[in-house]
Amino acid sequence: MSVERHYQREFVRTFFTSPTAVQGEEDSAKMIRSAAQLRGMQAPDVWVPDNEDATAPSMRKEGIENIIEVVAEHGADFPGEIHPRIVWHRESPATRYQGFKQMLEIAASDTDAIEHIDGFVVPEVGDIDDWKKADEFLTIVETECGLDEGCLSMSVIIESGEAELALGDLREEMGKPANNLERLFLLVDGEVDYTKDMRAMTPTGELPAWPELRHNTSRGASAAGLIAVDGPFDDIRDVEGYRNRMTENRAKGMSGIWALTPGQVVEANTAPLPAKTGSWLIEVDDQTTELESRDGREVAELDELALEELDSGQYRFRVGTNEQTLNEDELREELIDLTAYVPSMSDIVDSMEEFEAAKADGLGAIAMTRSATLVIDEVAISLSKDRMWDEATYQAAQTPISLFQDVYKNRPDQHAELEERYGADIVERTLSVGT
Amino acid sequence: MSVERHYQREFVRTFFTSPTAVQGEEDSAKMIRSAAQLRGMQAPDVWVPDNEDATAPSMRKEGIENIIEVVAEHGADFPGEIHPRIVWHRESPATRYQGFKQMLEIAASDTDAIEHIDGFVVPEVGDIDDWKKADEFLTIVETECGLDEGCLSMSVIIESGEAELALGDLREEMGKPANNLERLFLLVDGEVDYTKDMRAMTPTGELPAWPELRHNTSRGASAAGLIAVDGPFDDIRDVEGYRNRMTENRAKGMSGIWALTPGQVVEANTAPLPAKTGSWLIEVDDQTTELESRDGREVAELDELALEELDSGQYRFRVGTNEQTLNEDELREELIDLTAYVPSMSDIVDSMEEFEAAKADGLGAIAMTRSATLVIDEVAISLSKDRMWDEATYQAAQTPISLFQDVYKNRPDQHAELEERYGADIVERTLSVGT
Amino acid sequence: MSVERHYQREFVRTFFTSPTAVQGEEDSAKMIRSAAQLRGMQAPDVWVPDNEDATAPSMRKEGIENIIEVVAEHGADFPGEIHPRIVWHRESPATRYQGFKQMLEIAASDTDAIEHIDGFVVPEVGDIDDWKKADEFLTIVETECGLDEGCLSMSVIIESGEAELALGDLREEMGKPANNLERLFLLVDGEVDYTKDMRAMTPTGELPAWPELRHNTSRGASAAGLIAVDGPFDDIRDVEGYRNRMTENRAKGMSGIWALTPGQVVEANTAPLPAKTGSWLIEVDDQTTELESRDGREVAELDELALEELDSGQYRFRVGTNEQTLNEDELREELIDLTAYVPSMSDIVDSMEEFEAAKADGLGAIAMTRSATLVIDEVAISLSKDRMWDEATYQAAQTPISLFQDVYKNRPDQHAELEERYGADIVERTLSVGT
Repeated sequence: MSVERHYQREFVRTFFTSPTAVQGEEDSAKMIRSAAQLRGMQAPDVWVPDNEDATAPSMRKEGIENIIEVVAEHGADFPGEIHPRIVWHRESPATRYQGFKQMLEIAASDTDAIEHIDGFVVPEVGDIDDWKKADEFLTIVETECGLDEGCLSMSVIIESGEAELALGDLREEMGKPANNLERLFLLVDGEVDYTKDMRAMTPTGELPAWPELRHNTSRGASAAGLIAVDGPFDDIRDVEGYRNRMTENRAKGMSGIWALTPGQVVEANTAPLPAKTGSWLIEVDDQTTELESRDGREVAELDELALEELDSGQYRFRVGTNEQTLNEDELREELIDLTAYVPSMSDIVDSMEEFEAAKADGLGAIAMTRSATLVIDEVAISLSKDRMWDEATYQAAQTPISLFQDVYKNRPDQHAELEERYGADIVERTLSVGT
Repeated sequence: MSVERHYQREFVRTFFTSPTAVQGEEDSAKMIRSAAQLRGMQAPDVWVPDNEDATAPSMRKEGIENIIEVVAEHGADFPGEIHPRIVWHRESPATRYQGFKQMLEIAASDTDAIEHIDGFVVPEVGDIDDWKKADEFLTIVETECGLDEGCLSMSVIIESGEAELALGDLREEMGKPANNLERLFLLVDGEVDYTKDMRAMTPTGELPAWPELRHNTSRGASAAGLIAVDGPFDDIRDVEGYRNRMTENRAKGMSGIWALTPGQVVEANTAPLPAKTGSWLIEVDDQTTELESRDGREVAELDELALEELDSGQYRFRVGTNEQTLNEDELREELIDLTAYVPSMSDIVDSMEEFEAAKADGLGAIAMTRSATLVIDEVAISLSKDRMWDEATYQAAQTPISLFQDVYKNRPDQHAELEERYGADIVERTLSVGT
Repeated sequence: MSVERHYQREFVRTFFTSPTAVQGEEDSAKMIRSAAQLRGMQAPDVWVPDNEDATAPSMRKEGIENIIEVVAEHGADFPGEIHPRIVWHRESPATRYQGFKQMLEIAASDTDAIEHIDGFVVPEVGDIDDWKKADEFLTIVETECGLDEGCLSMSVIIESGEAELALGDLREEMGKPANNLERLFLLVDGEVDYTKDMRAMTPTGELPAWPELRHNTSRGASAAGLIAVDGPFDDIRDVEGYRNRMTENRAKGMSGIWALTPGQVVEANTAPLPAKTGSWLIEVDDQTTELESRDGREVAELDELALEELDSGQYRFRVGTNEQTLNEDELREELIDLTAYVPSMSDIVDSMEEFEAAKADGLGAIAMTRSATLVIDEVAISLSKDRMWDEATYQAAQTPISLFQDVYKNRPDQHAELEERYGADIVERTLSVGT
């Protein structure tokens, strides 16, 4: 029971933009020509030949011609969806009319490019009435070019306060007979222009984190059956920062992110997939550290921790500057509190199968147990963590599995890499669980 | 001058759910039978016989019979309100019709159960129009069973993006003549299902914190004269985590929380009450520590702090790795910055009385002074903190006092425990201040 | 291309309130009489003779007379705008009628006070319909007193959940023919009363941070072409806390803040201006420290950092407890990751001019390089940080420059201080860039 979606993919991990025409190159279409030939983990779920900000205004006419040529040649074989970005601005009728003409030119071309194009990306939208103007232009393009009404999807970039407010109107407006807003697909945050529109400033010029914007985008997507995508992460070299941002986003229900390079595409295609192997975490002084697994034991080597077994059979245990003397059970309780387990994909499938079996036996809730032997300063302690699973836990745990299933279904070009990552056996079990 | 509330209680601290029918027990009503007999701090402000998620689908028919039987027997003596949770889903007409029949069966029973039931809890609501469907069923139940229209209250669980958006419409919709939404009582967050609906994921499967959802729920409650309640805190053993969550919630204006066990009920009934004794806090490196009170002096024993009086009469003072040489006044200023005071209920009453007297003398603002002697490394320094109180400060300080007064009025079964906690004298003064 | 604003100033840094009538003083108008004579950095952008909370109810009649007298005498020469605060309450018709009479008395006075008054501040507003009541009173005041309809601006204090929700309706309501809401100017948060209205509580009585409220106010201002202002910062002695709050606010697009004293006015007038000199920051363990510039080298003296050049030509580099041996390039990479640069106003102007020149040459994006020599433990390492600038970066960087230009245009009384701060040459270049 979820909101009905009007598109195929349930999840989009990657939104990859490429300049449509680059000045001073022998082949101005060079960037999109190479992007169109990406495959596997390097190929995005959604590829965006970008005829707006990534392309100089003087090159955009040529950019449209390049899109037509490259998509006509490579579109049929591209493993992801193709959504060119055209120009648009809520405050400029001239720019909006340009955007319309760009879409029409692509759709009306005598190549078959439009057959490989899944939709268009409309930047700089304003109120919901502005979204309807773009929607109407798409309807006209479809009619003029003999396409089915509503067959082209529309994604928007949220980069103004007005557009953020419009996220609250979507669900209500999408049903109205006078528009075709059911064609909506992605809600993408554009934090650079949003920052400008909000007139926000930071000392170093770094972008603000905008947690409320991301929440509202994710919620708008959830309420209207759409997909939320975060904006570009400018510091391409900072892979760890990009991963942290994605982890934060997923906790907000935003599973996709913009990618600026094939390297970022690989990161962003991989990050939302369930872990390959499970791992134990320990949290000390608000810092979380992954324990190292050695011979089936989880070893914590942290200056902040010290553990010693006393002659009395008790333990002296120090966390930061706080030292306690504990018996074995008390020590175990402390360690259970400090640790957490990150399940692997295989672990999640195991738990789901176990719960399904229990449910078939008429049980509503069961305890799932996770055991480990922890080693601190060469002292080993075995412990078990319990978690109650009921129907709601089961369904929440299912999200990463649904994502994996969706990726597998929609991206045959990634099958080999996925099987190499997890093993064919686990992939097979994952594909059949919970469906 | 506050939004008019259509129910008796101004505050709800505790929302305690119990399974209505447990399989494999001799008495399937065992859980609700014992819950119905809770008294004092173990009894919740709102008790929820839970015929939805806490009860297996196959047991829910029996669950309704159990509710009728147990509430008819024990309802008259139960010290809190009783609000059974029925089944509902914004996307399933069959489930909604089931929910209607469950309410009707309880209300139409030939026992007097319905007379002890204050309202119903409706989970999994969607848009405001979905809330109206539940409201309409309640109106029909009332009419069919000869009850006054609007006498049954309705509480909802917010566990979808749509429902979160509906929180913004409440105030406007509640006045409309075609509904009885004035019956609304609690807005309860349901983070497990919300997480699923938002398709959010965390590495360990832990729930995201959802600060924006809690803000929006609290704001919706404030704007519509309702009460906001946070969802279940799963890790029953983690008492400190539960308390931290409640502190966070109260700073958002959300004074109630779900409880899963009588132990959690005690914690959640106690936490929002004003402190029994005042205490001094010191904040070093973003960590707040309570000072230990010894013989009327407040002792700070922290590795991060060092203080030494020099022969010159000056002081060497170290905070973390930052060491300064200061004269007495400078040292005092530093300590005033680092410390804060948590007032006891008696302190708040004192300040309120002092401000009321000043106001009677025509003063708009007065300084309240709080003095203490701090001891660090056996060096003692006396200091005073001033705070300006005006009408707004007075009214904001009144919130915990109003909560206490509301609890005292509505929960005679807790009088003995409250008097034991604070002393009869302070209870009496608290009951008469600010009214 | 930005939302059209119906007022002169693009930015308001300071909102300074003064009691209109103080009991027990020989001259009850003493406070506003001295405030009216503030000049330069001590004078606020918006001055608010406060006939509401800052003035005792019994003194408010006299307060109106004082406003008339003082504004008639000093208003023509006051360098900022003048917006008296009158009484209002969403739940009290009597208070609202009082507010109307206060505005009418000021506007109808036979002095020319009203000619120097730019608008009124309306506290304690509720739903948008309540805002319209205040707007209608202003329209009546204008008509009765022969003023142009809409010439008085209206600013509101957001101090209830209802008013926060109304922020989402503004843009749509402002265009309607039946109101003059285009007169809206400032959206000011009032966290003390908001906290009371939300019934929020903190252990020490300190105000909650309310990040969502500030986001929603800033977004509402952005969407409706208004200016967002944060509420009072009570701890007047805590200058660093006030600065931190303003830095946080600017990252939310809220560039103005309430000031309670001329000292806070100076701080708040200065804080949003671009830095006088650039500086390097280093971030270690989530703590950011400014490096000290000595002889053109940036010196990091932090216990958390240690650097040693080994005989092998490699480096031993410790950050916190994490020690690594690195070659020069690896060390440089680490330092690039740890550092950030805060540009001076002159740096921003340089970058903007450089980008403008590149754009004139047909380039869409260029790399801006920032170089420095860092010194840690007397070991010197030179490094360069690159940042790509495109049109969007350029426009976002422009915000502090636009603010400076707006201040310069509207506050001739601050020219001397601005030129002293930055040098006349840099001021001149700043005034002509990007316009």
